[in-house]
Amino acid sequence: MKQSIHKLAISTRGQGLYEFTSSVSEWLAQQKIETGLLTVFCRHTSASLLIQENADPTVRVDIKNYFDRLAPESSTYIHNDEGADDMPAHLKTALTAVQLSIPVMNGRMVLGTWQGIYLFEHRTHSHRREIVLHLIGE
Amino acid sequence: MKQSIHKLAISTRGQGLYEFTSSVSEWLAQQKIETGLLTVFCRHTSASLLIQENADPTVRVDIKNYFDRLAPESSTYIHNDEGADDMPAHLKTALTAVQLSIPVMNGRMVLGTWQGIYLFEHRTHSHRREIVLHLIGE
Amino acid sequence: MKQSIHKLAISTRGQGLYEFTSSVSEWLAQQKIETGLLTVFCRHTSASLLIQENADPTVRVDIKNYFDRLAPESSTYIHNDEGADDMPAHLKTALTAVQLSIPVMNGRMVLGTWQGIYLFEHRTHSHRREIVLHLIGE
Repeated sequence: MKQSIHKLAISTRGQGLYEFTSSVSEWLAQQKIETGLLTVFCRHTSASLLIQENADPTVRVDIKNYFDRLAPESSTYIHNDEGADDMPAHLKTALTAVQLSIPVMNGRMVLGTWQGIYLFEHRTHSHRREIVLHLIGE
Repeated sequence: MKQSIHKLAISTRGQGLYEFTSSVSEWLAQQKIETGLLTVFCRHTSASLLIQENADPTVRVDIKNYFDRLAPESSTYIHNDEGADDMPAHLKTALTAVQLSIPVMNGRMVLGTWQGIYLFEHRTHSHRREIVLHLIGE
Repeated sequence: MKQSIHKLAISTRGQGLYEFTSSVSEWLAQQKIETGLLTVFCRHTSASLLIQENADPTVRVDIKNYFDRLAPESSTYIHNDEGADDMPAHLKTALTAVQLSIPVMNGRMVLGTWQGIYLFEHRTHSHRREIVLHLIGE
């Protein structure tokens, strides 16, 4: 049994879903692990992780628009030091996830055919987001 | 330290919560692991996983109805290739989870007394859903 | 490779976010693990886990108020045996998480600078909440 750990940086240019499935699978392929558990962890409170459909890109547009309606910019929040998109970013992060664990089988993640891994950026300005990958297996 | 991996299929007949705690615990019992970590992964973007109350069945009815209101069928979505329940299914999946990891102690999952594991089906038609179980421990 | 498992009790006095990052990191420090995966599991269906901003406390107030609006007390729920806060508690738990897995690097959780671990209590009365910590690594 062995472990690997890796840091990944993702540059975002405004709100929306950024796919990084291939960055994860390329790193995984180098680790020579047949069976294991891969964990993806996002080190932020205003960006999150989603496994979502990787086929029709309009799904991502609808997801982004939906979360904008569900956690809208509003003057009712107490916390708004960093602008109107600040508190909605925390809420959208709370409603989704900052961590995903995906089993590895035959050297590959067991993602379904239509599943891709996305960073969901909730801030309007450009950011450099840090993701940690942890793998355990053999 | 050892690992086991297993695929489980769950047949669904329309939207709602389908408990499969016993399928997981029966498989776990066969693995002869005292202490470990069990991961449940759903390979879909229109069905998800929930740990919820296993006592009063009306909780599941209220949960289903609530998510129908929170992510309703609507003509405002761009993506609707597969019908009116398509995009709400993606949104409900984003709002819940496709993965759960549960510690194992004394050979059993550490679920609380009232916690059951559910597949949350978000599509109206019948589906065969694939779940992957991964276990590591000793 | 080794494992450790531990139970933690958190006393809550009404709805809101209770930070317990230091309880987790103190236990972790005693386990002498350099690289690994730490899983935090909440054994309840009316309290949940969140990783959220640990700086400005008003973020936690806004989060609590937001979830109160998103899953309000209401006479439309069928299940209300334990009071008006019962069903909203289940819904808030479904919308957040009962499990978090955090990679461990150089003996510490890879949390970002602004990330704290919170128990999100959804019931109005006082409760004693059980959390299980599982660690695997070396």
